[in-house]
Amino acid sequence: MQHCDTLILAGWCIPVEPHDLVLPDHGVAVTDGKIVELLPTGEARKKYAPGVLVDRPDHVLIPGLVNTHTHAAMTLLRGIADDLPLEQWLKDAIWPIENRWVGTEFVRDGTRLAIAEMLLSGCTCFSDQYFFPEIVAETAEDMYMRAVVATPVLEFPTPWADNATECLNKGAELVHDRYAEHTLISSAFAPHSTATVSDETFGELRILADQLDKRIQIHLHESAQEVEDALAATGERPIERLKRLGLINSSLLAVHAVHLTDDEIRLFADTGVSVAHCPNSNLKLADGIARITAIHSAEIPVGLGTDGAASNNLLSMPGEMRTAALLAKAESEDATALPAATALRMATLTGARTLGLEEQIGSIESGKWADLACIDLMHINSQPVYDPLSQVVYAIHPQQISDVWIAGRHQVENGALAQIDQADILRRSAEWRQQINGQLS
Amino acid sequence: MQHCDTLILAGWCIPVEPHDLVLPDHGVAVTDGKIVELLPTGEARKKYAPGVLVDRPDHVLIPGLVNTHTHAAMTLLRGIADDLPLEQWLKDAIWPIENRWVGTEFVRDGTRLAIAEMLLSGCTCFSDQYFFPEIVAETAEDMYMRAVVATPVLEFPTPWADNATECLNKGAELVHDRYAEHTLISSAFAPHSTATVSDETFGELRILADQLDKRIQIHLHESAQEVEDALAATGERPIERLKRLGLINSSLLAVHAVHLTDDEIRLFADTGVSVAHCPNSNLKLADGIARITAIHSAEIPVGLGTDGAASNNLLSMPGEMRTAALLAKAESEDATALPAATALRMATLTGARTLGLEEQIGSIESGKWADLACIDLMHINSQPVYDPLSQVVYAIHPQQISDVWIAGRHQVENGALAQIDQADILRRSAEWRQQINGQLS
Repeated sequence: MQHCDTLILAGWCIPVEPHDLVLPDHGVAVTDGKIVELLPTGEARKKYAPGVLVDRPDHVLIPGLVNTHTHAAMTLLRGIADDLPLEQWLKDAIWPIENRWVGTEFVRDGTRLAIAEMLLSGCTCFSDQYFFPEIVAETAEDMYMRAVVATPVLEFPTPWADNATECLNKGAELVHDRYAEHTLISSAFAPHSTATVSDETFGELRILADQLDKRIQIHLHESAQEVEDALAATGERPIERLKRLGLINSSLLAVHAVHLTDDEIRLFADTGVSVAHCPNSNLKLADGIARITAIHSAEIPVGLGTDGAASNNLLSMPGEMRTAALLAKAESEDATALPAATALRMATLTGARTLGLEEQIGSIESGKWADLACIDLMHINSQPVYDPLSQVVYAIHPQQISDVWIAGRHQVENGALAQIDQADILRRSAEWRQQINGQLS
Repeated sequence: MQHCDTLILAGWCIPVEPHDLVLPDHGVAVTDGKIVELLPTGEARKKYAPGVLVDRPDHVLIPGLVNTHTHAAMTLLRGIADDLPLEQWLKDAIWPIENRWVGTEFVRDGTRLAIAEMLLSGCTCFSDQYFFPEIVAETAEDMYMRAVVATPVLEFPTPWADNATECLNKGAELVHDRYAEHTLISSAFAPHSTATVSDETFGELRILADQLDKRIQIHLHESAQEVEDALAATGERPIERLKRLGLINSSLLAVHAVHLTDDEIRLFADTGVSVAHCPNSNLKLADGIARITAIHSAEIPVGLGTDGAASNNLLSMPGEMRTAALLAKAESEDATALPAATALRMATLTGARTLGLEEQIGSIESGKWADLACIDLMHINSQPVYDPLSQVVYAIHPQQISDVWIAGRHQVENGALAQIDQADILRRSAEWRQQINGQLS
């Protein structure tokens, strides 16, 4: 018998790579936070003497879900301003509240709430754009959550930095500091949008990101208004401008990408740009429906994202998978578009690829981090089970996530946070509501 | 002190009528299955001596959700055939399986699974179209679930009837039989679609439904193909044909209504036709996106429906509310379209109206049946709470439904079925899967 730290046995395993494969009665052996082997349950029981055995016969084991775009701390603003258009939502509702309240404690408490929500719904890695990225990184590390912490870059003063130069300096410091070669935390740069960053700053950012070998993510062609405003202001569409500035390349993650022409899709495909597709946020803000079938067909890597809770209002990756799969069919007028296996792949391995993490996470393969999620199908709404892959995408509720592991650490157990003080998070959230509400009224 | 059978106290009550109202700390007194009074918690505690007190301080109490369109027994085919276009899905997958398997036991077991799922997600009334409607009615009555049981009408032979005349006779019998004045069960007629019913049968149906004072519901303009095929076959669009046959009137519930011209919207508004909007099913089958903002603006009553589990694949009314609210914004390119309060109203009172039940259910008002649902907001994904109405539509998972009452009977308690043998339902579902899978392979 061979030792392993943890042996997880499941009714079905979906490794994602190879594509579209469901393995009944399989197990995963984990040691030192990494996947050692995926093998049939019978063999696993004979071969391994595990420190901990987790037996989940009615469950599907999948790679942990990867949320490629969020603003975690905005959970504290969940539902504070709904049913408004993007520009008005930002300028009249969100930005004034952020300017008044956002600081280190807001970001810490909001990020904790967000990480708890993401863990409970099977997400094991999130890519975050928000002020005080050093607090986001620290909080993720404290809670043992995998995160890509992107440093925001904006010209105008925010509660976190006075100008773009300060953003870049702070970002560079974050990268060089403790997170250079970290198990859980990696970093990136996040110019907010082309409307809020100058040509000069983009130029500096490009050089800095190249030097540090960091990826860049940006809200791009989210609304028709954004594209029109840019054309009016600069004579260029945002993508055109980024191309001129040398940022359209394989280090770029285009967030939203709702309004793309055929030429822009081709450009992304030719240059290796990735896309973070946030279907529920795009619907809620009436941005439109991304041409995800065409984008995917052009072999552009597409990850899924929840966006912030203020424009969703959930951080539920199972929900994004389902919506992405359903919406693609309507958008392309083709019911065969974006089948279940493809939706799950976007939410895991391809998502990891858009963040530069495809060698480390996103599939159940030997040598990768043991970032895993287990889903209990023995619920009325998931029965009967003809095809576990169909259930995972089309017929579960997020609260069926029974177990989550991050680099082998058992973070969610029997549907509850195993290592995190949920009561404290709820208490702090209620305090923030009271404070912010007092200010509003 | 005044006696009442049950007093439910909640952190917030949303009565739906008056519109867009949230009442903090309110209670509902229930006696003989009906709502006696809605009043502030402090007053309620002083005024009523309840047989049972249910105290839910972190919860929102809403009227039970009304599912205006489903085929309940098709839960047994959940996920058996995904990612196919409507025509192929029906003709190659669903119909052959149904012809082989559908009988009284299939309908009983499938309907039980569906009712369990609907109850657990806060639905207290469903409108069903399926074979063996007498079994659907019997099952709903047994389980104490409110149902509108619509008798299917088709020309061609099915496992249930040989032809349309037999359908009509069986429907008339069902209506006159034990469900004439029933607390829970009412009935209607459901010609499947214009493609499957002759002019002659529509004529007979119209006379029969008039005589019996019953409403008619029909799949109408669900896909572009359906409209084109009808034009090719008869020279008329389905709505045009129904108008000629005298069926376009206030007794008609048009299910789906995805492809409506401006003139058809005006016709519905002028004649009092209602619409059952099934957004997730329409997406999944790539039918298109209903023009629900225009339909709602024309003051056409719009209810929400899940459709059958084979094309969704959930029977989750919270999910339909959320999708309806989000999709309307994208469809109309207006983020203010279909705000939360309107989505909740469609899922309750307006849904009840489309089924002719608005005097009996759909809002928390004295004299109505106590069909109620309670939602626990003390979950990570629903915190903090600035606006409970926003949370109910945008930020809950269905498994937060803690309690459900049907005509005062406590059917779901602390998130579990209180009166129903869930294990038996799961066992029977697994048996059906095994049987049907054996046949498929």
